[in-house]
Amino acid sequence: MSKGLGETRTQFFHLGSAAEPFVFANGEQLPGITVAYEMYGRLNARKTNAILLFHALSGSQHAAGYNPEVPGLFGRWTDDVKHGWWDLFIGPGKALDTNRYCVICANYLGGCYGSSGPASLNPETGKPYGADFPPVLSSDVVRSQAALLDHLGIKKLHAVIGSSVGGLLAINFATLYPERVKIVMPVATGLRTTVLTRLTLFEQVLAIENDPHFKGGDYYEGEAPEYGLALARMISHKTFVHLDAIERRARQTVSQPNGQLAWYQVGHNVESYMLHQGKKFVKRFDANAYLRIINMWLRFDPLRDAGVDSYDELFARSRQAGHHYLVFSIDSDFCFYPEEQAEMVSALERADVSSMHITVHSDKGHDSFLLEPQLYTPHLVYTLEGRWQKSSLDDPVNDVE
Amino acid sequence: MSKGLGETRTQFFHLGSAAEPFVFANGEQLPGITVAYEMYGRLNARKTNAILLFHALSGSQHAAGYNPEVPGLFGRWTDDVKHGWWDLFIGPGKALDTNRYCVICANYLGGCYGSSGPASLNPETGKPYGADFPPVLSSDVVRSQAALLDHLGIKKLHAVIGSSVGGLLAINFATLYPERVKIVMPVATGLRTTVLTRLTLFEQVLAIENDPHFKGGDYYEGEAPEYGLALARMISHKTFVHLDAIERRARQTVSQPNGQLAWYQVGHNVESYMLHQGKKFVKRFDANAYLRIINMWLRFDPLRDAGVDSYDELFARSRQAGHHYLVFSIDSDFCFYPEEQAEMVSALERADVSSMHITVHSDKGHDSFLLEPQLYTPHLVYTLEGRWQKSSLDDPVNDVE
Repeated sequence: MSKGLGETRTQFFHLGSAAEPFVFANGEQLPGITVAYEMYGRLNARKTNAILLFHALSGSQHAAGYNPEVPGLFGRWTDDVKHGWWDLFIGPGKALDTNRYCVICANYLGGCYGSSGPASLNPETGKPYGADFPPVLSSDVVRSQAALLDHLGIKKLHAVIGSSVGGLLAINFATLYPERVKIVMPVATGLRTTVLTRLTLFEQVLAIENDPHFKGGDYYEGEAPEYGLALARMISHKTFVHLDAIERRARQTVSQPNGQLAWYQVGHNVESYMLHQGKKFVKRFDANAYLRIINMWLRFDPLRDAGVDSYDELFARSRQAGHHYLVFSIDSDFCFYPEEQAEMVSALERADVSSMHITVHSDKGHDSFLLEPQLYTPHLVYTLEGRWQKSSLDDPVNDVE
Repeated sequence: MSKGLGETRTQFFHLGSAAEPFVFANGEQLPGITVAYEMYGRLNARKTNAILLFHALSGSQHAAGYNPEVPGLFGRWTDDVKHGWWDLFIGPGKALDTNRYCVICANYLGGCYGSSGPASLNPETGKPYGADFPPVLSSDVVRSQAALLDHLGIKKLHAVIGSSVGGLLAINFATLYPERVKIVMPVATGLRTTVLTRLTLFEQVLAIENDPHFKGGDYYEGEAPEYGLALARMISHKTFVHLDAIERRARQTVSQPNGQLAWYQVGHNVESYMLHQGKKFVKRFDANAYLRIINMWLRFDPLRDAGVDSYDELFARSRQAGHHYLVFSIDSDFCFYPEEQAEMVSALERADVSSMHITVHSDKGHDSFLLEPQLYTPHLVYTLEGRWQKSSLDDPVNDVE
């Protein structure tokens, strides 16, 4: 339960119509889409104090406070997601201070927490879209959220922030709509899909597709491909944590490591721990949505989306728009390695974009960005207040309303 | 085709009987087992020039020369395995010089290239053992090969050598039968299963067991769990290669990266490359045998097998037997990391065992040990000739016969 924000609720923004369909980057279209979002704090009169937050792969629009229910999710709104995933960072007096800023977080298009996705009902058939839901690219997600900002009357964000896959989207947003943001804060993320990440993601695709219940994505009338999704989650989860920490944690657990699978006998608490992670996940996530997001990550390419050939050209947009970047690395990150953020910062520096690169030391691996607000809050506050360069930013709170 | 050894053939050693069954480490037993092996070079009269070589996870007894056929393998003896897997290292004038030494390599018990394994026919039923074949521990493999040495009249090996999983077995052999070996040469291997390796292996177990055709291991009358085995191979293959090299290689391929899976469209040559690796592998390997070996690796514990509590105690056996270790690391190894061999060498040094630790620089990752004989040959030769300490070893070739 949040100490700060209390109960929150998800709102729904509908975009498009039969006459004006939403056209995906790959050319497919839907007559209308829904974007599920939450807002924390109040927009000021000039609407200059908004922060757009992109969630990570398996996150949701529910970033802070406590939300007991989101309708229409067929049981996926489990206790694991009722507590906002970044509640340690968002609220009165926290890093994203809701006394000063209005924080907006929306579920990815293609996701499964209220935005249109493969598990949503296709109004034409009354059944879930399943395999018919188009592949989603990051530019589709970003465009759907830019439309949400239009709807809310927000022309320019004070900041865009995202961690992990959310950081990819933050960069995509900032370079596709450079005039709509001042501060860009990518946390534990990258500029491109490395070959290691690509292979890890591809394994997850195959884990799901090899499940006999997957049926090409049209499984909603039968069993869900839970074994495949659980295996996919286990493959990714190993990159989210620091393995030494996993080993320590597994040693402390008391469960007996002797579960019987089809043939194999579970032989170590680390294995039980991972199985538990996989099994817990399938209750709250849709395999098709997972595939859409994995596919988006595999195809992430901000150069293609911006129609440029180099990171220098890409970030020239940021320079021209006067962006300031605050880039975070986690020294024990095995999902987005510190080298990836270093590459990003080099590109920003070559393009003469204002930036600051902070590496935090953690033994929690990639998940540090969820768990250790004390490592991030000082720089987040300093940057959001424009204090890295006194003259460069207006303080949105001091705006005359 | 080998320049040195020409055609080779696999021989079969039968061990045990209804009266004297082979008892596995877990207590299960079989009335008799078969060990498939090959020999290169000739045993000297005193039988002091033998080198026992342990193959890696997916290797076979066929280490050198060309073997056109091994009977009874149901098509698994594909072109990929007809050329000896260490032919670059074994032959006249090569690192393991067959003019001087007699090299013996045997297929793992539980494997699928001629030694008894889950795909072998159970004489009681006339059908493959399948799920009924016992789990195999490394001590079972080592014991079956010690029995083979008895059969060949070899009391003491000049050297035992193994790379990757084969290195685990070499260490297991040297510490279970310290009096039977002089030189121990572990290449790109470790002392224990790290948590990262454990998770990667566990993912492979699940990939196979989740395949609808697996049926707990009793699949021989139907389709084999090929998708699961292919995924398992892909998961492991990523640790065998240097990912930068994979990326370069994939960029050079001309194949169109647009294959359609169940839903996902292959989007990058690296993905096609991995799919190809997986598909190629399932033609030559049995999923149950793969599971037995993965299980053996997950449960590898030379301390348990030797009945000791520490590596100091374990290697005290090596000190007492006067072993000399030559330990190789590959600086780009992502399967057995250089830190793992460093840990091994530290333990050897603490136990005052004669040892030498050589790290080779390669851009080929773990697979370097298969591909780059020039990096290993000088030290292998020097060590096998006993030249690191002139007085410490007899040269087996100069034995009066």
